[in-house]
Amino acid sequence: MPDFEVEVRVMPRESLLDPQGQTVEHALHALGFGEVRGVRIGRAIKFSLSCGSAEEAERSVRAMCERLLANPVTEDFHIAVRKAS
Amino acid sequence: MPDFEVEVRVMPRESLLDPQGQTVEHALHALGFGEVRGVRIGRAIKFSLSCGSAEEAERSVRAMCERLLANPVTEDFHIAVRKAS
Repeated sequence: MPDFEVEVRVMPRESLLDPQGQTVEHALHALGFGEVRGVRIGRAIKFSLSCGSAEEAERSVRAMCERLLANPVTEDFHIAVRKAS
Repeated sequence: MPDFEVEVRVMPRESLLDPQGQTVEHALHALGFGEVRGVRIGRAIKFSLSCGSAEEAERSVRAMCERLLANPVTEDFHIAVRKAS
């Protein structure tokens, strides 16, 4: 079966506060990067997946996000799948 | 000044162990996703930046990574900058 490289980005939902992001924003301002706004911090998850097709891989990763990788109440996720070279 | 949307991905360096990634990999296997390998977990950071040009924005974000966002000993970072629509 072909190998796929998967990248998942899990971010706090836009409508929710992100205290970690706010803390980093304040720290960036204190370091002189005053032009930064709206910092949001989430998780970047990368892995390899052996799967029959890209569609099947994406379906499988979506199930992983819903069951383990993301909190469906507070987080949104974005999936990128590409065939390993 | 134009606004840029910035995405930074900070990942544990390839040569280092990633215990969080290993834990998630075991959990995925236990949930029936046995075809997953090499899970690595890092941070996804998004923000807006007012800046004169994309080149200047990227230079500024690189400085933020080196000074605050990433640990230069244990982490690699990847920067994506695009003009806000």
